[in-house]
Amino acid sequence: MRRRVLTAVGATGYDAPRMTRPLPLKNDRVLRAFRKQPVDVTPVWIMRQAGRYMPEYRAIRAKADFLTLCKTPDLVTEATLLPIDLLDVDAAIIFSDILIPVEAMGMELVFTDARGPQLPKPIRDRGDVERLKAFDPETLTGFVMASIRQTNRALDGRVPLLGFAGAPFTLATYMVEGETSKHFYRIKRLAYEDPSLLHRLLERLTGVVAEYLVAQVAAGAHAVQLFDTWAGALSPDDYATWCVPYTTRIVDAVKRTGVPVVLYVNGSGTLLEAMADTGVDVISVDWRVDLADAKRRVGGRVALQGNLDPCALYAGPDVIRREATRVLEKYGPGPGHVFNLGHGILPDIPVPHAKALVTAVHEESRVYHRSGA
Amino acid sequence: MRRRVLTAVGATGYDAPRMTRPLPLKNDRVLRAFRKQPVDVTPVWIMRQAGRYMPEYRAIRAKADFLTLCKTPDLVTEATLLPIDLLDVDAAIIFSDILIPVEAMGMELVFTDARGPQLPKPIRDRGDVERLKAFDPETLTGFVMASIRQTNRALDGRVPLLGFAGAPFTLATYMVEGETSKHFYRIKRLAYEDPSLLHRLLERLTGVVAEYLVAQVAAGAHAVQLFDTWAGALSPDDYATWCVPYTTRIVDAVKRTGVPVVLYVNGSGTLLEAMADTGVDVISVDWRVDLADAKRRVGGRVALQGNLDPCALYAGPDVIRREATRVLEKYGPGPGHVFNLGHGILPDIPVPHAKALVTAVHEESRVYHRSGA
Repeated sequence: MRRRVLTAVGATGYDAPRMTRPLPLKNDRVLRAFRKQPVDVTPVWIMRQAGRYMPEYRAIRAKADFLTLCKTPDLVTEATLLPIDLLDVDAAIIFSDILIPVEAMGMELVFTDARGPQLPKPIRDRGDVERLKAFDPETLTGFVMASIRQTNRALDGRVPLLGFAGAPFTLATYMVEGETSKHFYRIKRLAYEDPSLLHRLLERLTGVVAEYLVAQVAAGAHAVQLFDTWAGALSPDDYATWCVPYTTRIVDAVKRTGVPVVLYVNGSGTLLEAMADTGVDVISVDWRVDLADAKRRVGGRVALQGNLDPCALYAGPDVIRREATRVLEKYGPGPGHVFNLGHGILPDIPVPHAKALVTAVHEESRVYHRSGA
Repeated sequence: MRRRVLTAVGATGYDAPRMTRPLPLKNDRVLRAFRKQPVDVTPVWIMRQAGRYMPEYRAIRAKADFLTLCKTPDLVTEATLLPIDLLDVDAAIIFSDILIPVEAMGMELVFTDARGPQLPKPIRDRGDVERLKAFDPETLTGFVMASIRQTNRALDGRVPLLGFAGAPFTLATYMVEGETSKHFYRIKRLAYEDPSLLHRLLERLTGVVAEYLVAQVAAGAHAVQLFDTWAGALSPDDYATWCVPYTTRIVDAVKRTGVPVVLYVNGSGTLLEAMADTGVDVISVDWRVDLADAKRRVGGRVALQGNLDPCALYAGPDVIRREATRVLEKYGPGPGHVFNLGHGILPDIPVPHAKALVTAVHEESRVYHRSGA
């Protein structure tokens, strides 16, 4: 599988991402922190930073349904830039959805505001897995690559642009459950009853995700984040079985392009060491992990991203500053911390609260980077 | 507060639980394991073991709505005994709901099959907290105490009977959110914006829960479990603030009666040490914690209960045996393990699968107790 990915890389010229990134970055704090290099202040971005909580985003969504937005580079560029203009975050992340490559593999995908993503014909047997289409990122998800190129032109080097993908287990969960699940019982039942079929599906997805992320880097993504959101529903043994080998191969393929890789799992308190074993550069932790404890456990091997409780942004600016400062204190001095929420920003947070967070992180973190760049 | 509890205990004579427990137990494995004493095989019971997955339970529910069932000792006794008769588990747990004392404090409580518990008039301000009624377990929740006495008579000493209560933070979450919440944003907002009000509510609940559990012991409960189900949504610092002091006081009050106390939190991977700090005898862990890791971290201070993934019971008996054996291996030889699921049994599990689990635990665990009682 690793060889197949690299062949694809060579064949399409994806091993030359520099070609598509001619602009020097005016603000490279996030990339420096991902690489544990000194910075002047702790960089910050926010998961789902372009989203429903912003009136400006809702205005874009009024023009197009969610999937159409994802497939229209002009609109993607507009949405991706919103938090750069409005919040002063230190990174942009390309506006998209983790299920885009799943749709490209031939699965019907529907988004409803009330119920989130729906896959009306979920994977039920081996035939469903075998019928999944071969994936080619430039032809099947060319709109993502075009959006990355266009967004980078619009950003003009102000901040780095992050690419992203869902990790195989989380994508497989959606493909088997057909929707966001509470107990994940179909995917777990499959794991218990037909492990070879689930491994086969994860194999397919590993190739897809690796090619998809390498293509994003070739198009100009300065770093990528792998979302294994639902992996936190697994026991550590099951995480080792169903996630670590596949994630490791993807990380390996992407790191050969030279960009940092971030891995996020929601509920990763018992998984940090196994996540670090995948070779990622950065682990993005949720708020239920004590950041000082995470640093002690895996900080020697990876940079850390996180980890304010998204609910803290319901509070006013003073409380937000206090809570942000607590997170900064937990990480303490030294490089290797990118501030973020522990999960995506909630849809009813006031925009000024998000802005207050970014300001507080930049101001309160200076003390930890006295010898910084 | 502690003094107030003890005064109440003294005043109502609850410090003599032996009076109501004249029967010697024929099977005391669970109590021995809670106390880390030797046993012949690892004892097992199942959270929500009397529940919707059982046709016999659904037949009882056909006679009465959920709250009426909770308040009718004949029906409670019948429901509580079902898993003893049908599954051969090593403990009974009194059939009830954690919100029963909340209703007794004057809050309207409605159960619907579709949406679970609903509190139509949730706590919104200090006035709502001050208006909560004074609690007296024997007058306001006498049906629970009557049910415990009647169930123990029906059990005739076959297995111990467990009492239980929700912990203050989890009860407060329901009281403030008004229903099962996904993000717990109202309770967290309260914690950020009016911490003294939340502390006041938790103070009230601490007294209530302590008196309620002490009354259950006086009525004949052989041990009690404290469910702080939603505390896993908190960061370790927030758990230390909002849960540890209150839980500690309850544990202290109950332990003075001489019975073991179990503490369950769903998603406790980063909280085990703080949970042990409360002085509980047993920590009940969910499946996302590696049991060997939990034993290494807190096994010197507490017994452990758990921790099979509830989804494993969707698989057939052979897989159930394999997965149960994996859990037993994780804990390894020696006393101090009570087998359970990591969360409540799911409503669509076939009863024979639950029975297969109990049989497998009893058979496969014998090897770990060669010198056992």
